[in-house]
Amino acid sequence: MAKDLANKKRRVHFEPDNVDIAVEQGANLLETAIQAGARIYASCGGAGVCGTCKVLIEKGEVETTRTEKLSDEEYEQGLRQACQSRIITDLAVHIPVESRLETAVLARERKGMATGDQQLEALATGWRFNPPLSKFFVELPPPTLQDNVSDLSRVLRGLKQRYKLRNMTVDFDVVKKLPQALRDSDWKVTVTTLLTAIEPQAPERRRPRVINVEPGDARERHYSLAFDIGTTTVCGQLLDLNRGRTVAEGMDYNRQISYGADVITRIAYCQRPGGLQKLQQAVVTTINGIIKQLLRRSRIDTQHVGHLTVAGNTTMIQILLGLDPKYIRLSPYTPVATYIPLVKANSLGIKVGEHVYLFTFPLVASYVGGDIISGIVASGVHQRERLTFYMDIGTNGEIVVGNSDWMVTAACSAGPAFEGGGVKHGMVATNGAIEEFDINPSNLEPVVGTIGGERPKGICGSGLINIVAGLLEAGVISQNGKFNTDLPTKRIREGSDGYEYVLTEAPETQIGKDIVITETDIDNLIRAKAAMYAGCQTLVKSVGITCHDIEQVIIAGAFGSQINVEKAITIGLLPELPLNRFIFIGNGSLLGTRLTSFSTDMLDDARRLAKVMTNFELSENAAFMNNYVAALFLPHTNADEFPSVAGRLTKLADNQSKQGVAA
Amino acid sequence: MAKDLANKKRRVHFEPDNVDIAVEQGANLLETAIQAGARIYASCGGAGVCGTCKVLIEKGEVETTRTEKLSDEEYEQGLRQACQSRIITDLAVHIPVESRLETAVLARERKGMATGDQQLEALATGWRFNPPLSKFFVELPPPTLQDNVSDLSRVLRGLKQRYKLRNMTVDFDVVKKLPQALRDSDWKVTVTTLLTAIEPQAPERRRPRVINVEPGDARERHYSLAFDIGTTTVCGQLLDLNRGRTVAEGMDYNRQISYGADVITRIAYCQRPGGLQKLQQAVVTTINGIIKQLLRRSRIDTQHVGHLTVAGNTTMIQILLGLDPKYIRLSPYTPVATYIPLVKANSLGIKVGEHVYLFTFPLVASYVGGDIISGIVASGVHQRERLTFYMDIGTNGEIVVGNSDWMVTAACSAGPAFEGGGVKHGMVATNGAIEEFDINPSNLEPVVGTIGGERPKGICGSGLINIVAGLLEAGVISQNGKFNTDLPTKRIREGSDGYEYVLTEAPETQIGKDIVITETDIDNLIRAKAAMYAGCQTLVKSVGITCHDIEQVIIAGAFGSQINVEKAITIGLLPELPLNRFIFIGNGSLLGTRLTSFSTDMLDDARRLAKVMTNFELSENAAFMNNYVAALFLPHTNADEFPSVAGRLTKLADNQSKQGVAA
Repeated sequence: MAKDLANKKRRVHFEPDNVDIAVEQGANLLETAIQAGARIYASCGGAGVCGTCKVLIEKGEVETTRTEKLSDEEYEQGLRQACQSRIITDLAVHIPVESRLETAVLARERKGMATGDQQLEALATGWRFNPPLSKFFVELPPPTLQDNVSDLSRVLRGLKQRYKLRNMTVDFDVVKKLPQALRDSDWKVTVTTLLTAIEPQAPERRRPRVINVEPGDARERHYSLAFDIGTTTVCGQLLDLNRGRTVAEGMDYNRQISYGADVITRIAYCQRPGGLQKLQQAVVTTINGIIKQLLRRSRIDTQHVGHLTVAGNTTMIQILLGLDPKYIRLSPYTPVATYIPLVKANSLGIKVGEHVYLFTFPLVASYVGGDIISGIVASGVHQRERLTFYMDIGTNGEIVVGNSDWMVTAACSAGPAFEGGGVKHGMVATNGAIEEFDINPSNLEPVVGTIGGERPKGICGSGLINIVAGLLEAGVISQNGKFNTDLPTKRIREGSDGYEYVLTEAPETQIGKDIVITETDIDNLIRAKAAMYAGCQTLVKSVGITCHDIEQVIIAGAFGSQINVEKAITIGLLPELPLNRFIFIGNGSLLGTRLTSFSTDMLDDARRLAKVMTNFELSENAAFMNNYVAALFLPHTNADEFPSVAGRLTKLADNQSKQGVAA
Repeated sequence: MAKDLANKKRRVHFEPDNVDIAVEQGANLLETAIQAGARIYASCGGAGVCGTCKVLIEKGEVETTRTEKLSDEEYEQGLRQACQSRIITDLAVHIPVESRLETAVLARERKGMATGDQQLEALATGWRFNPPLSKFFVELPPPTLQDNVSDLSRVLRGLKQRYKLRNMTVDFDVVKKLPQALRDSDWKVTVTTLLTAIEPQAPERRRPRVINVEPGDARERHYSLAFDIGTTTVCGQLLDLNRGRTVAEGMDYNRQISYGADVITRIAYCQRPGGLQKLQQAVVTTINGIIKQLLRRSRIDTQHVGHLTVAGNTTMIQILLGLDPKYIRLSPYTPVATYIPLVKANSLGIKVGEHVYLFTFPLVASYVGGDIISGIVASGVHQRERLTFYMDIGTNGEIVVGNSDWMVTAACSAGPAFEGGGVKHGMVATNGAIEEFDINPSNLEPVVGTIGGERPKGICGSGLINIVAGLLEAGVISQNGKFNTDLPTKRIREGSDGYEYVLTEAPETQIGKDIVITETDIDNLIRAKAAMYAGCQTLVKSVGITCHDIEQVIIAGAFGSQINVEKAITIGLLPELPLNRFIFIGNGSLLGTRLTSFSTDMLDDARRLAKVMTNFELSENAAFMNNYVAALFLPHTNADEFPSVAGRLTKLADNQSKQGVAA
């Protein structure tokens, strides 16, 4: 059979993307969808174990290996796991809502979040507007027999005389363009220079690099790009370096998401033949799409963009640069480099001018990437004496503790619960995800609210926190996360995975099934929050303080932005501190790339920070393991860590036992 | 007719190269020969005006535009100018000896010339052996959870601890190779670093650049290439940087010679569509051929070559780099850059490892190139107080005057006579060129000797000097270069170009024609030598001295090496100084590239020299014009410049007039 499949072309049509592609008969359907540019989500990267890439075969025939992720009912409806299917005939394929990536919800912003320019400035202060990318206009005397120095010498002399610039490094490409540029414009040219981050030990060694020359006075068109490369989403900004403002902002899902939801799956995918190249191409395609969008919207030509600054976690950055992330996953978790030399952006396939360099934020360790340094710089933690927690909560959470004098950091592997992974009805935070949750204490009936107000499809991570906190405060679950099965409600029932609580019944959902939260789900959340909190504790104890000494908590990241602080404290994810000590900065990484595009001083701060920050490796740390076990409770086994929550829960328990007595 | 020529393939066979090629019917025969790799010389670059590219059509048919360069006799024999011929049918073409480039004679060395290593060291002294390219071996501790810094940080730390290296710049390509190299070799790697020439104002800013990493201890295989890119020949050496010695040396004609003999013709060719690319490709092909030869002969693998240093005149270097040499030819003669930034050699098509940079010698002006700086460094002019003339004599002659305190330079456009151009039977200095000349004073019969001892084909530049000096000292010509037609010899006769002297009669030659020297030839030589001497005078006068104050004359260049000093003084080309003040260094440019490959100190000297050397632009200089006119005499209108020669000639004139009286 396999023999017959070769060399026959089949056409596949994908809806609702409305894209067509012709491929070899026998091709994998998931790979084909990715290739066609259809928006499809494959959490496990095509291993067949997650069930997120289910598609409806509307016309034609596929050959599928069935897994337990596909019910008989689904199979009969015509649903197949794309990753497990080979194309036999021409196909019409529909990607159902739960397997799709919706870009519409990407731009959700927390109300009152400190991301506007004014609030931003209040966070990082005292920085000068001195962008690393500069344009200089020189009017040069034309050469004569008495003064026939080389074209390059003439330009450098002009820059020295007019702008006191010296000790320049010149790109060879500039030398190539120079004779024409000078003579096309009557010896008046604009020179673009780039300052790179200093060597902390040797700031005096910095040499401006001449990266471009344009005929005439081209100072007016002077732009730069700043990007955060997230595992899930990629966000970019087009910056006007003359006016110090953001011209346009755009974002999209990282197209690597079709190869796996988290960094570990992606690293695994990179080990396949051609895997690294595919993932690199996926993120480059994403970046190019955003750049195109930004330029089109602002009617700016590519050639006027002179620089590109990116930050991201270590895995994302290594893949973008074509550096195998293999050793990030293997103990002792070494990244390739903490400071990446400048590289021409177009050598990676990024569609910008030949003269544009890619500057990558310096990083600290395999799991404390440049996105964290970028966020710290953006939030000015290093500028103040105030003792600060900086947290980016997620599958791979990062924590920094410190102030202007010192800084320590650690990464916590929390598992995928915060992003809806390992949760029966878990999903990413897109339309239809249950996020709001309240419970009527009298009858234990739920009130749920979804993102986008649609009928529920599943539960996102922030929803899970709200649900567990709600169930805990209502006494529906106990502090060890188990259901109180004595309660008089049908919502609690025994399901295929043990006890569960029904959030929404089938008719009210988009998926035609009851949406429930199970004890396993709750257990996964407890383990996730325990990892984060134990990380915080381990770090603060290592410097001789406690969580209660923290004067400010900065929460970064898309997931963090959606967290309800009170509920997060209730379950023991965030330390019990006055609510006004919490600040949400959203995409701190993007903020930092923007700020360092405007300020060389801040760029220098980033380089210094990456050098001085001490990383604690928690993975085999005994203190961390003890803290972790102690945190496997709601909110914590040590009530002193969460005195108010513990007090409320004690009161509740008393009430319940009284009612139990009364009943 | 032209229409019919399109799209038909014709095969052309070239002898004696024994190469075949299939081309479109109607293709130009010279271009086809070049494309096929046949060795053919085309002095004028295919304009049809020089007649050097004559070929014999042995079989088949071409369509030729006849010019005056082809006699009726030649035409009947089947000779055609390749550049004027289009291919009609399949062809068998023979390239006759006078149109060929013979590599056998390239390596001619002047007896006793100071090019051996020992003599070289006597010229440039006091240099340390500290090559800019270095290899460092580090054995690193494998990473642990307690020490999991990045791979790059580990290597840099190792280099700092063991070798005190710091403030390194790292190439991105090294970052890419690092993880594998470290793990393939149990954390023992060899790192290659490159020091580039300093900024004279800021030597402390120099940062070693990490350009390569190899697994294990690879210090043993540590090589570098040094090249002189001449207009006519390209010479290369493979250097062992561990032992400070030359492993192999090779040379070849610059393949650009098929596009024209001199820089001006080449610059003109660059203005045609695709011309620059063709010339660039031609020299790159030449370089690649020599590299292949050097590596094969010494059984060394390309990957062990870590650096490439080249010197050449400004035009050759700009073409090699793909920089249009257009403005070199147009007043006020500006080069693109006097200091070329490092560029990856393989980005130009040079077949070396990806990590290899091309270092180009800094230059002074459009007609004073890096080859002169290289030669000055090699001969140590800048190291001694001794007042020195450094001369490279040729179509474009260069002169430097100075010592350790100061240096001035000028370029003289001497015209092509020194290279056999503009001379009726002129030819390049290959086999069959008349070089030795003596005359029997009693009967005025000549005695000629040729290169390679073959029967004469023509006269090379050094031969021309010897002939004119001989004729002058025998009274056959007077001091204004005119024949003394009263003399009793049939050798002097009136030819188609005026009076001439028969050097060899037709039966004794390879070309079947009398080989003669004409008054026009003599006139061309006088103008060439006058330009060189006037250049010397203008320079020395500009600093308040005379030619007689010069304590040392260093003669560089292939042509210079073949000059008979006494004869050159007789005609007024070289200043009248004691013979022991003259030193011949041959290819000074190649010596300098070799020396700077061994010594960073010398590399720094080169950079400093290029900055401090003052260039005199002679082309519209009034003093030069006066000096030039005064030098249009044999040896000079001012007898005080050449007292001995003038004395001898006066005596001869007296004798002749006495004999005349006696006769």
